Amino acid sequence: MLEKVSQVVLLKDFYGPLLTAKQQEALNMHYENDWSLSEIAASMNTSRQAVYDLVKRAEGILQDFEDKLGLVARFQRTRQNLDELKLILEDSKADNPRLNQAVSLIEEISALL
Amino acid sequence: MLEKVSQVVLLKDFYGPLLTAKQQEALNMHYENDWSLSEIAASMNTSRQAVYDLVKRAEGILQDFEDKLGLVARFQRTRQNLDELKLILEDSKADNPRLNQAVSLIEEISALL
Repeated sequence: MLEKVSQVVLLKDFYGPLLTAKQQEALNMHYENDWSLSEIAASMNTSRQAVYDLVKRAEGILQDFEDKLGLVARFQRTRQNLDELKLILEDSKADNPRLNQAVSLIEEISALL
Repeated sequence: MLEKVSQVVLLKDFYGPLLTAKQQEALNMHYENDWSLSEIAASMNTSRQAVYDLVKRAEGILQDFEDKLGLVARFQRTRQNLDELKLILEDSKADNPRLNQAVSLIEEISALL
């Protein structure tokens, strides 16, 4: 479940703005705030089934964008390489103070991704 | 003009798969193969005006995705930081052979972006 949650959150980070406001709101409540479908239904003044459909449809749309563009998969591979790079530089920087600047750049890049 | 071409090509690299096959084809002919609108019209058996509309509409869609997601802008900032990082490591690697490995990782990351 945790893995599924973080995958949806990641997809939402990339493609969320392409969803409707209502779809985004339901995903945020469910995955970021950990609300149950019934709690979301009460807050949206609708049925649990309607919220279930809304969430499933939004997840499907996010996954369709990922299937076409693959940006989350690319991000994950990039992040892995950056982590490895950072380890090498952390190990090496005692010998060379300019590498401190390099480590800062890696942190900037990670924040941009 | 060159700047506009490379901007459209970049947008197409990111969001192209979200266009219809015909929109992708017209953009490829125009921007990658440098065909004129009239040449594309002849090849598609349609009018120059229809191709113009097709291309403009496709460009508009790509720009809309970028306005919502901003992935090309993020890519460009990341690329800039990576270039800077690579320069530092190229300068430092003579003193530390492990940095060669770091430079290879940067090249892998650049290829992934």
